[in-house]
Amino acid sequence: MRVVRNVEQLREAMEYMRGGGHGPIGLVPTMGFLHEGHGSLLRRAGEMCGTVVMSIFVNPLQFGPNEDFESYPRDEKRDLELAEREGADIVFIPSVEVMYPTPIRTQVSVTSLTTQLCGASRPGHFDGVTTVVSKLFNMVQPDYAFFGLKDAQQVAVLRQMVSDLNMNVNIIACPIVRESDGLALSSRNVYLSKEERDQALVLSQSLQEARQAFEEGKANTVAEVQQLLVSVISRSPLANIDYAEILTFPGLDSLDADASLMTIDGEIIIALAVKFGKTRLIDNIVFTPKEVVVLV
Amino acid sequence: MRVVRNVEQLREAMEYMRGGGHGPIGLVPTMGFLHEGHGSLLRRAGEMCGTVVMSIFVNPLQFGPNEDFESYPRDEKRDLELAEREGADIVFIPSVEVMYPTPIRTQVSVTSLTTQLCGASRPGHFDGVTTVVSKLFNMVQPDYAFFGLKDAQQVAVLRQMVSDLNMNVNIIACPIVRESDGLALSSRNVYLSKEERDQALVLSQSLQEARQAFEEGKANTVAEVQQLLVSVISRSPLANIDYAEILTFPGLDSLDADASLMTIDGEIIIALAVKFGKTRLIDNIVFTPKEVVVLV
Repeated sequence: MRVVRNVEQLREAMEYMRGGGHGPIGLVPTMGFLHEGHGSLLRRAGEMCGTVVMSIFVNPLQFGPNEDFESYPRDEKRDLELAEREGADIVFIPSVEVMYPTPIRTQVSVTSLTTQLCGASRPGHFDGVTTVVSKLFNMVQPDYAFFGLKDAQQVAVLRQMVSDLNMNVNIIACPIVRESDGLALSSRNVYLSKEERDQALVLSQSLQEARQAFEEGKANTVAEVQQLLVSVISRSPLANIDYAEILTFPGLDSLDADASLMTIDGEIIIALAVKFGKTRLIDNIVFTPKEVVVLV
Repeated sequence: MRVVRNVEQLREAMEYMRGGGHGPIGLVPTMGFLHEGHGSLLRRAGEMCGTVVMSIFVNPLQFGPNEDFESYPRDEKRDLELAEREGADIVFIPSVEVMYPTPIRTQVSVTSLTTQLCGASRPGHFDGVTTVVSKLFNMVQPDYAFFGLKDAQQVAVLRQMVSDLNMNVNIIACPIVRESDGLALSSRNVYLSKEERDQALVLSQSLQEARQAFEEGKANTVAEVQQLLVSVISRSPLANIDYAEILTFPGLDSLDADASLMTIDGEIIIALAVKFGKTRLIDNIVFTPKEVVVLV
């Protein structure tokens, strides 16, 4: 495994790998503080690609002024051990100065998929994501890029960007990885107190219960499912709901509150963002209502 | 020469050319209605590249609602003759539906170089340019892309984009090509009446006289040069000045009106946009004041 820290080294390493006929190139962009979710992306990349590149960069552009850019957890040594163990060939760890040597004046932005959900709570966040991912794509020129579905809106936004701009890369969305008790893995889980960590289970629980209630015919409309989510999350006194929404996926179009889920064509997403103290957690499930075997 | 009209054909043609080891790939993006200015870009591309791709696409995204998208002159047959004669290997002529099969939701934009000059007169114009050029770069993956310096602001904006987003292409800026009487070649010159065509000479004349006055010590400050430009252009009763400005290049920073040109480090641009009836013409010169031999 090779660790590179500037763009010239990265390009040189990529040229070497491309020249060697090692097969497709996979990119796993991350912000580091890696966990098993990232591990699963690396393994998927390893299955599909001859060369696996992981980037580790806490991108200031995608943090709001009052967000946790400064305090975002970092542990390079542990990250490199995980990357090596999970089969990364090249790890790119640029500094902010390497990524933004001069103030950046160019922005890649996706409209209409970025005004809802996390886009509403975190204005400018997705512009930061699409801009830095564009840079990484141009540096690495991957055939495939791997992203976790925990950030489902990010996946939808990046797919739109790739399609609209004819980028030469396939976005591979990988399933959410969870703790055994259901909590979705996140680098930000480290922020949680013991009590918050316990109560954070309401995210995955509410999603499971919402889906189950739909299967059992106990919640049929968008409003009913949403109500159920809120009532389950409210079991946790520490939980502060940012959003709990049901939208089409990947279009992220809003649905009529009275619409029965069974009438909806294609996939939907049930998406949550919930704050515990200062820590904002997200979770979601994506499924096709018409394919669910409703048990009544 | 191969003519391709959709993205799949283009990618296939590019893959074939890349596989053949024909050397670097050059792209000449145009809006068609080709003239000797475009011819000079093709010849320069031919000198530097093994494969020369020309695109011909009147891009609706870069036209304002009251601009000339519909009436922009088009002549495919003549364009293909010129492209063949000047050595294009592949000509890409997409329809609007090929370039924008679904409403585009992604925008590439450069800030702070696009608020002045043509950016001020044509809001959204450069966003349309940077977005379509990003698409073309991703489709063709050229090593070099060739643009005329008549659109000097466009060159500055595209260079910024390429640098900020780490795009794998070199922007080659080529000199303005002029009629023998000095008028800068433009597809829009065809809009001019005989009388407007005659009077349009004030653009290049004012630029020449401004530079000469600076060389002869008759115009020293930014304000003096600007005044001279306006007075020369005013000789033409049909001319309607949109802007006549002196800025740094390629930064396009404004200069103090009282600043002596001789004190300015680096290059400057004297840039004009002048309307004759409904036809808006642009012209400019770029030079380094400190390298000018002032004759006094």
